[in-house]
Amino acid sequence: MELKYIKINQKDNNVTVVNAEGIEKGDNLKEYNIIVKDFVPLGNKIAIQDINKDLPIIRYGEIIGYADRDIKAGELIDFKSIHVNKVKTLDIDIPYKSRKVNDKKNKERYFYGYENKDGTVGTKNLLAISTNVQCSEGFINKLVDYIKNNLLGKYENVDDVVTVSHTYGCGVAIDALDSEIPQRIINNIIKNPNFGGEVMMICLGCEKFTPDKIEAVSSEDILVQQNLSFHESFQKAIEMAEIRLKRLNKRNRKKFPLSKLRIGLQCGGSDALSGVTANPTMGYVADRLVEYGASVIFSEVTEVRDASNIILSRIKDKDLRKKYINEINWYDDYLEKSQVDRSANPSPGNKAGGLTTVIDKAMGSVAKSGISDITDILLPGELIKKPGLTFAATPASDFVCGTCQLASGINMMLFSSGRGTTYNLAHVPVIKIATNNVLAKKWGDLIDFNTGDIAIGKSSVDEKGEELLDYIIDVASGVKITKSDQLGLYNALVVFNPAPIT
Amino acid sequence: MELKYIKINQKDNNVTVVNAEGIEKGDNLKEYNIIVKDFVPLGNKIAIQDINKDLPIIRYGEIIGYADRDIKAGELIDFKSIHVNKVKTLDIDIPYKSRKVNDKKNKERYFYGYENKDGTVGTKNLLAISTNVQCSEGFINKLVDYIKNNLLGKYENVDDVVTVSHTYGCGVAIDALDSEIPQRIINNIIKNPNFGGEVMMICLGCEKFTPDKIEAVSSEDILVQQNLSFHESFQKAIEMAEIRLKRLNKRNRKKFPLSKLRIGLQCGGSDALSGVTANPTMGYVADRLVEYGASVIFSEVTEVRDASNIILSRIKDKDLRKKYINEINWYDDYLEKSQVDRSANPSPGNKAGGLTTVIDKAMGSVAKSGISDITDILLPGELIKKPGLTFAATPASDFVCGTCQLASGINMMLFSSGRGTTYNLAHVPVIKIATNNVLAKKWGDLIDFNTGDIAIGKSSVDEKGEELLDYIIDVASGVKITKSDQLGLYNALVVFNPAPIT
Repeated sequence: MELKYIKINQKDNNVTVVNAEGIEKGDNLKEYNIIVKDFVPLGNKIAIQDINKDLPIIRYGEIIGYADRDIKAGELIDFKSIHVNKVKTLDIDIPYKSRKVNDKKNKERYFYGYENKDGTVGTKNLLAISTNVQCSEGFINKLVDYIKNNLLGKYENVDDVVTVSHTYGCGVAIDALDSEIPQRIINNIIKNPNFGGEVMMICLGCEKFTPDKIEAVSSEDILVQQNLSFHESFQKAIEMAEIRLKRLNKRNRKKFPLSKLRIGLQCGGSDALSGVTANPTMGYVADRLVEYGASVIFSEVTEVRDASNIILSRIKDKDLRKKYINEINWYDDYLEKSQVDRSANPSPGNKAGGLTTVIDKAMGSVAKSGISDITDILLPGELIKKPGLTFAATPASDFVCGTCQLASGINMMLFSSGRGTTYNLAHVPVIKIATNNVLAKKWGDLIDFNTGDIAIGKSSVDEKGEELLDYIIDVASGVKITKSDQLGLYNALVVFNPAPIT
Repeated sequence: MELKYIKINQKDNNVTVVNAEGIEKGDNLKEYNIIVKDFVPLGNKIAIQDINKDLPIIRYGEIIGYADRDIKAGELIDFKSIHVNKVKTLDIDIPYKSRKVNDKKNKERYFYGYENKDGTVGTKNLLAISTNVQCSEGFINKLVDYIKNNLLGKYENVDDVVTVSHTYGCGVAIDALDSEIPQRIINNIIKNPNFGGEVMMICLGCEKFTPDKIEAVSSEDILVQQNLSFHESFQKAIEMAEIRLKRLNKRNRKKFPLSKLRIGLQCGGSDALSGVTANPTMGYVADRLVEYGASVIFSEVTEVRDASNIILSRIKDKDLRKKYINEINWYDDYLEKSQVDRSANPSPGNKAGGLTTVIDKAMGSVAKSGISDITDILLPGELIKKPGLTFAATPASDFVCGTCQLASGINMMLFSSGRGTTYNLAHVPVIKIATNNVLAKKWGDLIDFNTGDIAIGKSSVDEKGEELLDYIIDVASGVKITKSDQLGLYNALVVFNPAPIT
């Protein structure tokens, strides 16, 4: 018989219904010897012990709110039985609490990647052709097409040729408040480990975001379109590309410890099982990767905002806490200027789906970061500076967040979804993880990894986590290719630009 | 001998040096029998009559400032000899002044285009495949590639298949202040006359910008990716495309009066000659097109801001004046929030190039609108509502402005440049007009039309204007193909979104 409910964390005083039909009143939770006292729909919580008024409701091992009444074991805990204050002011002095517990020895693991001079390692060997201004996008699109069709075949160790294109560069207020954000993102994307330290940039010649504002390019990396005819420019660009293709082609995959992985975590198109199956599996993987010495980043300020006090309790260093709070405040102000807020109050749909509080909702998102200490905080698009778990303060929008993570220097992305998304990048592998079996079956040609069996008791978070680690290694080593890469589905880079357009 | 200076408008009390080396002190302006009293570099002005202190300096036939001293005929008028107040408060009651004078009868002209049910006419016959969210971009890119390679050949009357893609749709604050701007733009782009009234939209299925927010689509125009596997979706999308290709293929070009043209005017990568050669030529063409009953729109708020009082004097209707002032104020506020302004004060480079005042600079941009009355004002991306000359209040950034104009429903764009830009759209022809012979020669494979001969006296604005009108008709009729279309250089659509990302 399939499992009908799940306890997310051992410390939880409630279980979550994972049965599509819900659990009937009068059913017996045999494991706890409790008779269910209400009908409890999919995604909703049942108390597995008596919880007196004002005592904490624990989920994901964290306090997601407090009982509004005396809740008896077996009763439905819906959003009316729980209260919490929307977290407005963040408490920088909240007690630090180490959650890290792992008695098991991790098995020995390594992957095969491309070594870069700066010490990073690529999971792909790509020639990236970039531009500093949207005006040149037509040129680089044509150039990349030409190289793919005429040159790439000669360079068998080069995986692909990709564009680094964006809508920035001209018509921008170059010195406006916050204009450093898009400029930092573009500066750092070019340094991504998957580009092998090779840089090539096509500039128009009259843009405001001038090449001297881009650290990674030197004069021989730049071609200025205004100096030459199209055909001359195109010929010159092909020559520049071939020089770089030859250098990239000399590289071969070498064995590396997992500490060379830099993984970005994302979720999008989430459902009631995201916080139960896929995100905890990503959390398991994040914890193990941190133990292996890898860099793992999670992001999405507006998604995690309401679990901020829990996040702060995972940050030991006070300066880092300050940086986190500054970023949260920046986003609050940014949204407020346009008379909106993070809209984090669970919507009617969320409530019906069992997300009882804003913390409950945010915890589903935070679950993918595991329980390790957060050892660094990044501005949007700032480069990863340390191994361990890092929070990157980016927007939650999938494509904006993805572009920021790319700029931070990830060499792979894990992306969980319950409803399904075709989001993918040409620059790093994006592993698509389903939260449920329905999606995994329906989207068999798009989903790379399915955690749906956790919800029906056919697998556990630990089992799926170990499987996912092996899968990550195969993808990082080029042994397995993600479904979206096989299909060639690629999204645009979307550079976060909160500054105005003139 | 080549011409060394030019009088832009008959009413002007100064001439502009168009000779690359400038004009030496002691040279004789024979036409006016004046000895030049200073060395005057390229782009700078020489007084051709005495202008006493505080009397107006006239250029483009308009007051661009007032003499700061008694200026003698033959003297250089540089930025130190002229004063003007940066236009802050706009005067809604400024006297209306009709500038329209045309004694000549326009020659009979028509073009061949594609008739649409809504009364508009296309200059291309395109299948546009759009999406409501960035997430689906990979899918539509792949779909368009497939159609081009496998289907398009069967439909010889269809010119091309294009994507309508953007970075909006998810992760947006859907009800935020100003969020109606990107939503209006996307809503209206789909209605562009060049898409033949055929609509086809790929949606992911969980985006915030839901299909019901997009007027032009009905349920049979939509494919929701989350309902089907990739291969099923792709097959379905191909079927949807073929239905539309068959309908589009039944269309043939028919003869239409020029009143069916809807022309967007833009300039970018400007130089000292933009306001002397190409923009006045576009202005001539704009005036004639207005006489033919066509719709002509010019844009770029921050560029024309400082000529606002002159613009207002060309608007008869008080409500339209109000709409104009509202839009100008909106932009002022929008920029001020990020602690910048329109940066319209001529830069040191502008001053060296002879742009003496903010009005002088703005007039160079406004010159491309001719001298007709402005009979309508549009919000960014708002649909063209009337024939005649319309001002569309868009940002000045080329690719943002271009996307807004496309949304307004243009079926062709004229784009002048002095330094050169490769900006082009797949959706409407973009005619690239050079301001000078150096660019036209260097960029022979990118420039469609050269007005450089005006500066050296080998041609006049009227002559070039008549030539350009004929060229426009050939391009609108599909008889001539722009250089950028021949090369297949296409920029991204960049939807103006002043609202925040969550």
